[in-house]
Amino acid sequence: MARCITLLTDFGHQDVYVGVMKGVICRIHPQAQVIDLCHDIPPQDCRTASFQLLQAVPYFPPETVHLVVVDPGVGTSRRAIALDLGIGYCVGPDNGVFSQVCDRYPPRRVVELTQPQFWRTPNPSATFHGRDIFAPVAAHLAAGTDLTRLGAAIDPDSLVRLPHLTYEITPRGIQGWVQAIDHFGNVITTLPATLLAKGYQQIEIQGQRIPLVHTYGDAPRQHLVALVGSHGFIELAVNGGSAQLLLGCQNGDALWLV
Amino acid sequence: MARCITLLTDFGHQDVYVGVMKGVICRIHPQAQVIDLCHDIPPQDCRTASFQLLQAVPYFPPETVHLVVVDPGVGTSRRAIALDLGIGYCVGPDNGVFSQVCDRYPPRRVVELTQPQFWRTPNPSATFHGRDIFAPVAAHLAAGTDLTRLGAAIDPDSLVRLPHLTYEITPRGIQGWVQAIDHFGNVITTLPATLLAKGYQQIEIQGQRIPLVHTYGDAPRQHLVALVGSHGFIELAVNGGSAQLLLGCQNGDALWLV
Amino acid sequence: MARCITLLTDFGHQDVYVGVMKGVICRIHPQAQVIDLCHDIPPQDCRTASFQLLQAVPYFPPETVHLVVVDPGVGTSRRAIALDLGIGYCVGPDNGVFSQVCDRYPPRRVVELTQPQFWRTPNPSATFHGRDIFAPVAAHLAAGTDLTRLGAAIDPDSLVRLPHLTYEITPRGIQGWVQAIDHFGNVITTLPATLLAKGYQQIEIQGQRIPLVHTYGDAPRQHLVALVGSHGFIELAVNGGSAQLLLGCQNGDALWLV
Repeated sequence: MARCITLLTDFGHQDVYVGVMKGVICRIHPQAQVIDLCHDIPPQDCRTASFQLLQAVPYFPPETVHLVVVDPGVGTSRRAIALDLGIGYCVGPDNGVFSQVCDRYPPRRVVELTQPQFWRTPNPSATFHGRDIFAPVAAHLAAGTDLTRLGAAIDPDSLVRLPHLTYEITPRGIQGWVQAIDHFGNVITTLPATLLAKGYQQIEIQGQRIPLVHTYGDAPRQHLVALVGSHGFIELAVNGGSAQLLLGCQNGDALWLV
Repeated sequence: MARCITLLTDFGHQDVYVGVMKGVICRIHPQAQVIDLCHDIPPQDCRTASFQLLQAVPYFPPETVHLVVVDPGVGTSRRAIALDLGIGYCVGPDNGVFSQVCDRYPPRRVVELTQPQFWRTPNPSATFHGRDIFAPVAAHLAAGTDLTRLGAAIDPDSLVRLPHLTYEITPRGIQGWVQAIDHFGNVITTLPATLLAKGYQQIEIQGQRIPLVHTYGDAPRQHLVALVGSHGFIELAVNGGSAQLLLGCQNGDALWLV
Repeated sequence: MARCITLLTDFGHQDVYVGVMKGVICRIHPQAQVIDLCHDIPPQDCRTASFQLLQAVPYFPPETVHLVVVDPGVGTSRRAIALDLGIGYCVGPDNGVFSQVCDRYPPRRVVELTQPQFWRTPNPSATFHGRDIFAPVAAHLAAGTDLTRLGAAIDPDSLVRLPHLTYEITPRGIQGWVQAIDHFGNVITTLPATLLAKGYQQIEIQGQRIPLVHTYGDAPRQHLVALVGSHGFIELAVNGGSAQLLLGCQNGDALWLV
């Protein structure tokens, strides 16, 4: 069986850490197809990792193994886990990086990684479990090892969850927040597209009212618009420019659908 | 049939957009070998995409599918197209990103992507045709679907072309322009190497005359030289340094072969 | 035979140079699995390439071909070489990039790449041997061509070696140096973990004494610690932060195990 393995880390690109994990995978499961999701998660930012993972998982084959190594607690007593979500498997630290996928796709089975025969070494480094535990376990899982052999079953309700912003109904309109800003400067809100059925027509942020349109090109260049982005949330964008630069906003800023 | 698929985008590296396209490809054609060409095209810069694509296409097997997603007009009426160049296939928006490959390798066949059965969904997002239209079509093409099944044939002469600078003969010498600057600060001109047969020996730029040499190491360190670069154009370089930093030049600046 | 090929270069990510090498490999050996180690080596920095290569090689299958293109002397008389290290093969310029792997894994066989039938063209570009010589040779080697067919055997002792810092015993303690700083700001010293058997308990740098601990989380957030990093060297780190930012240190700075 040749499953895909995806990689999501905060390792950046200046070192060989990602390459080393791929070498470890290659030694265990040479046929694995390894796909980079992102290595530019801000260091130790479990919340961003959780958001980005959810954006990617639904688009992969359901037997894919998603390996997440954003791991500020490496070497401490935080648990190492593997999950079966039904639409994919996940491997990584139990520190909240799986919060959003678990909310959307409640895990069927979760194990703590307690079986060192699936690790690179029974004496893992205190600082690089990606190499010594997570990548080897992901490779074995992708090669067909059953999840239950990787360690002891644990209660999915015991997993660390990071609370994340959604939206709430207020007298001023439906309040949401900025939950991510992408490479293009598009500002992704927590407001799901389904809210638009209620007839709202604008987003209010920083005292400005921004019209809802269908796509970027529906506005003159350099004008702010709101639209349903590819994530399925309402986002703010600038045709030919950056909404973040124009607004100077950041994650957590409030806005209203009005 | 297992063809390569290459990816050229302006998506950068901080989001999972590229990974998502790879997931979509993997679901349709798990055996495809997917190769990143570049994801750091400046946002919406179709001209740079066109230049970079031409530098890569000739080095790939002729059945390769080159997927280009630099798409400022996504969601508008700009056409989505696939091309058969003879030395490779291309898939992407009809906005000029294929200008330079089409000049060099006139397309044999072009289709507009009008057959939603080859898309991820008949209701594509208004903002991410890379995921919903182009990646799935590239995967089907790489898996052996004939180009003509993807949509209605269109006239190659109807494609959007971006004019690009070449060179012209002037009293002062052969005038060219800066057409690209690479990661090393090498300044790539529009002057093809073939012009050197005429006995010219220097490049004049900003009032300086820069000698033509064979390779970087033919000059003392930190000295400017002109030479035939790997693109087949005359380029300006600094042994052990950056010509761009030394000259402060940019795309479109004029220079002369003298 | 389908061996892995790894790529380590200073090409960065803004151009298609890496992609072009992958295209060349794909034409010669379509089944090769190509893995990026790092493309952000500082331009022409052979010393950093040598360090990073050593960190990766031991984790790959022993038949892997490691292609290194950090090549300030491209087009000059510097030799192009291929090495058999026993735990992997290497291909690249003879300019010191293989210094550290050769120290750790003395090469069994070394050849100079003198057989143009394994190149992309008998007339290689003067500026891109990665495309025209090294990538094709790596592809042939990964496809099963014997090393000895690639060119004339040369004496391993004739290879260019870059001296690199190790450590020395001084009255003040065991003196080491900063040898690398990673994406997280972890400061990797030249002091191997084996020195800790001698009972030392602190690192002295810039007049500060930093305690040795087991892992990042053993200190309060934003506190400096010293620990054995995943490279097997003592490193300085900050729990939840960057040791480099806190110390303002750089490669070559002295420190003492005390």
